Amino acid sequence: MDISRYLEQKREEVDRFLETIIPTVETAPTTLHESMRYSLFAGGKRIRPILAIAAAEAVGAPSRAILPVASSLELIHTYSLIHDDLPAMDNDDYRRGKLTNHKVYGEAMAILAGDALLTLAFELCSRRDLLNGLDALRQVQIIHELAQGAGNLGMVGGQVLDIQAENKEINLSTLQAIHAHKTGMLIRAAVRMGAIVSAATAAQLEHLTLYAEDAGLAFQIADDVLNVIGTREELGKNANTDAQRGKKTYPTFYGVEGARTLAAQCTDRAISRLQTFDAKADPLRELARYITARRN
Amino acid sequence: MDISRYLEQKREEVDRFLETIIPTVETAPTTLHESMRYSLFAGGKRIRPILAIAAAEAVGAPSRAILPVASSLELIHTYSLIHDDLPAMDNDDYRRGKLTNHKVYGEAMAILAGDALLTLAFELCSRRDLLNGLDALRQVQIIHELAQGAGNLGMVGGQVLDIQAENKEINLSTLQAIHAHKTGMLIRAAVRMGAIVSAATAAQLEHLTLYAEDAGLAFQIADDVLNVIGTREELGKNANTDAQRGKKTYPTFYGVEGARTLAAQCTDRAISRLQTFDAKADPLRELARYITARRN
Repeated sequence: MDISRYLEQKREEVDRFLETIIPTVETAPTTLHESMRYSLFAGGKRIRPILAIAAAEAVGAPSRAILPVASSLELIHTYSLIHDDLPAMDNDDYRRGKLTNHKVYGEAMAILAGDALLTLAFELCSRRDLLNGLDALRQVQIIHELAQGAGNLGMVGGQVLDIQAENKEINLSTLQAIHAHKTGMLIRAAVRMGAIVSAATAAQLEHLTLYAEDAGLAFQIADDVLNVIGTREELGKNANTDAQRGKKTYPTFYGVEGARTLAAQCTDRAISRLQTFDAKADPLRELARYITARRN
Repeated sequence: MDISRYLEQKREEVDRFLETIIPTVETAPTTLHESMRYSLFAGGKRIRPILAIAAAEAVGAPSRAILPVASSLELIHTYSLIHDDLPAMDNDDYRRGKLTNHKVYGEAMAILAGDALLTLAFELCSRRDLLNGLDALRQVQIIHELAQGAGNLGMVGGQVLDIQAENKEINLSTLQAIHAHKTGMLIRAAVRMGAIVSAATAAQLEHLTLYAEDAGLAFQIADDVLNVIGTREELGKNANTDAQRGKKTYPTFYGVEGARTLAAQCTDRAISRLQTFDAKADPLRELARYITARRN
């Protein structure tokens, strides 16, 4: 299969869908909606939604509910980037080659745009008009997965650990805990949400969860490597910022080559979790490979 | 009925319940959970949860699901206070007589504690173990009400309008729009969520929604009046801050006495919406009166 084509096609589907559920810039409060749109349509690769779609496809032909469910993950991801970039947090001026949200709209609006995107994710997942292909019990389960992946024991918890680790001597197990929460839990939620849309069996959900954990780790290690070796043009933001901030990453512990090897091992392990799945899981397999091979 | 006793009893029930669902300060990340608890247990009156409980009681004996549903509203309310107090927003140092969250834990942690409380509200409402007295379709509906009340066209939207109005000449209809969103929409959601827990009919839901809109307006006008006439001791924060900030409020347009009269009219109208309800709606009736009579 052609993974680039698959990624491009799904990204467009997600973008088109997101366009239909975010209020226009003419809708009051106009600046809030402009600010939400600014970051949501800033060129994200939609990895989390695509993982959800691919997981749903691996189990069976997904219902139409997959697009809103998948897109809710991008709302969460976008809010987390806006808040992470704030002066009180990572204090970043650029993201994906564009000024960060608070540099354009100010801190107050950036905080509120993040809050609104986070809330909108749950509003979207709780719509019956868009998710009527799902039974309500599965819909509740999906919402719960999203909340757990994003919350205090998930992504937000990981961001707290990350902030607390800056300029400190941390060991490898702390680094693993940071990543498992900060990026891992939402990727895990993405795959599980997709699987639940397609009514995965308990065994399928179990295998896909293990896939997600390995793929999530590969994704984060690859991200750390890119931060070291990527150029400003490729990344759309300043390169090698982790080291400048005294932030410990996988390359700190393993070197760039060691980290690359580790990422490749995680990718192989992720793919091996899909043994019981047929060709419908090929997009998931290719996604795991893409995650470590990408240049931005 | 004795409304003080009712309020005290329900407040304790909500507090006891919240205690069971917020991780202890020994749970990692410990500072995050400490920060979440600091603001959640800072002496809030639990008005929104109690409105939800009273609405559920007005319709019929509520299921055990009412306590988690009601408590989720306090998680949302608490997050909104933490974020509103931030330097980039209202820049308040005190709230309910205690230092604000960011003054104790720093801005980064305050932003994340708010994000985590917001997410936890949806995690709570999507739990099946605690809400198994509800059918899943109603559970989805409740989650949707919460998201709409809290989101870009609800509470967050109102906060945006409020910030944009500071130090500007606004007219009465703008003031009304600010309040209808900033406080009104979550109070409306509270009452509707409680009604849905008790499987309200469409007609009951309609009447209760009108009650909530009137009571919410009374609540906000009373709040504006208190900001002018309350003392620092009563409010637990600096008094008369609205005027100092050049913020237009109901007393700006109507004077203190005029605003008081308006609040009393809203209260009467709220109570009149409950004509078709029997004595089980007395707590809602008394709550509407309490809202305008309170001193903090």
